[in-house]
Amino acid sequence: MNVIGSFSALANYLFETKQSESQGVLSRIKRSGSYLTLNKLISFSIPFAGRAGFEVLELRRGLLKAKIPFKGNTNHVGTMYAGALFTLAEIPGGVMAIFEFGPRYFPLLKEMNIKYLAPAKTDITVEFSLTETQIEQILNTTNEKGKCDFTLEGKLYDKQGELVAESIGHYQLKKRSDG
Amino acid sequence: MNVIGSFSALANYLFETKQSESQGVLSRIKRSGSYLTLNKLISFSIPFAGRAGFEVLELRRGLLKAKIPFKGNTNHVGTMYAGALFTLAEIPGGVMAIFEFGPRYFPLLKEMNIKYLAPAKTDITVEFSLTETQIEQILNTTNEKGKCDFTLEGKLYDKQGELVAESIGHYQLKKRSDG
Repeated sequence: MNVIGSFSALANYLFETKQSESQGVLSRIKRSGSYLTLNKLISFSIPFAGRAGFEVLELRRGLLKAKIPFKGNTNHVGTMYAGALFTLAEIPGGVMAIFEFGPRYFPLLKEMNIKYLAPAKTDITVEFSLTETQIEQILNTTNEKGKCDFTLEGKLYDKQGELVAESIGHYQLKKRSDG
Repeated sequence: MNVIGSFSALANYLFETKQSESQGVLSRIKRSGSYLTLNKLISFSIPFAGRAGFEVLELRRGLLKAKIPFKGNTNHVGTMYAGALFTLAEIPGGVMAIFEFGPRYFPLLKEMNIKYLAPAKTDITVEFSLTETQIEQILNTTNEKGKCDFTLEGKLYDKQGELVAESIGHYQLKKRSDG
């Protein structure tokens, strides 16, 4: 897969620079207390996510919180469309992998399972986490074997705190051949 | 779930009329040899699908073929975003259920599993089928018990005929309380 060729100029700026610079950008995003730049980048890189209004609310070492709006994502029975919930559950894995592991690695989604437990009738949020031990183990295995499988489990909640969906994303971190 | 309240006027026209009339609309769609009306309806009812360019290519008793375009659905590495493939795999279940079983019933998605096998770099198509026996069994059980679980398995192919993803959707058909 030609990873470099199809990156946009903006994505290049963030993801294709050296790891220290990339972390610098993340640091700036964190310092500014706003995820506007990050969300613009996601929207630019994956228009599908931007159109659905996917938004990172918080990103720090080992943790990502995200939201997807109810508005614009309804289905024919007035609840949130299943695909919007999928998008909320899926985008974080890629974002976390890029920011946790840096530009010398890239994540692939191998499989996603999502269970719909209750109709979603408000904006929906999700939180994903990876422990230091997990991050270290994924990185070590990838450096050693060129790739490492990992899973991210998400619980999607509505504004009233009701669990509306649960997801398990099966990802693989790979080392870039030119990394 | 208030199914009726949130239906749009257009959806009402197709889905909320008596079964014979609804079948009449489907017959007209079939006779015209064009799925323009159906696709407009889907896009209107589920804007998420419309924005992604989801399109029914063929719909007849027990069979649905659909497509999603590559354009507009790319990710940061220039392949089709996983959520677009999810949408292609998911929307058909609802459409088939509504047209196979009529407006006295409605489908719920309980769970979706999707495996990504190869990067998708062209428009992608999928085909779903239900046998006469399956349709009859689902309908009989729903009439008897008020609901019936059923699964739809999809294989998603690119233009070169390569299998890029496989999906298993777990749906439930329910009888409307006012049906």
